[in-house]
Amino acid sequence: METPNFDGGFVHAVAVDAESGDVLMLAHMDGEAFERTVETGYAHYWSRSRQQLWKKGKTSGNVQRVREIRLDCDGDAVLLEVEQEGGACHTGHRSCFHRVFDGERFVEKGERVFDPGEVY
Amino acid sequence: METPNFDGGFVHAVAVDAESGDVLMLAHMDGEAFERTVETGYAHYWSRSRQQLWKKGKTSGNVQRVREIRLDCDGDAVLLEVEQEGGACHTGHRSCFHRVFDGERFVEKGERVFDPGEVY
Repeated sequence: METPNFDGGFVHAVAVDAESGDVLMLAHMDGEAFERTVETGYAHYWSRSRQQLWKKGKTSGNVQRVREIRLDCDGDAVLLEVEQEGGACHTGHRSCFHRVFDGERFVEKGERVFDPGEVY
Repeated sequence: METPNFDGGFVHAVAVDAESGDVLMLAHMDGEAFERTVETGYAHYWSRSRQQLWKKGKTSGNVQRVREIRLDCDGDAVLLEVEQEGGACHTGHRSCFHRVFDGERFVEKGERVFDPGEVY
């Protein structure tokens, strides 16, 4: 299987920061989102909550320029290496994974890179 | 929300290589898999295809010792930093994301680190 398998409607999409190597977010792509990403060079996703195509950063300006796309062994997940403008997370953090397990619970870690009140 | 949200049955789980920083695989965890991971220090997942708890590497020996667990902003994905024994992928590759998009299609990249015929 040499293409993403969109039989289930969408595939998982993991975005990694080209600069730091950190995982920024996990989202989903349908066939159209994948095509638009390839055509434009900017990450597009399928919003499961809003049931629509979503250009990452369209509202916030925090776009993701895609440098590389990888596909996993069973074709249901893609990995995007991106140049992230600002922060990936709607909370203002660079990465959506900004809570770390301390053995009992998850605690906030890291500074915000933008103020979500000013952006959304 | 300070814990993974298992209301949908499971959360996404992205495993990252503690050594190289590379994304190794994407899988899923239900509440039991999460608890077993925390208790044992080794990654456990929920196999959606087999509908059962799955200790990564139980058959192959390619276990994942978990160094850190992170949670994303909406609580439906966790990020595991792991010490990966051997390779994460059942194809013998270190990472499941071993195919790279060349603009038209995905092509194999990288060597196998083990022979799946000898392991499974």
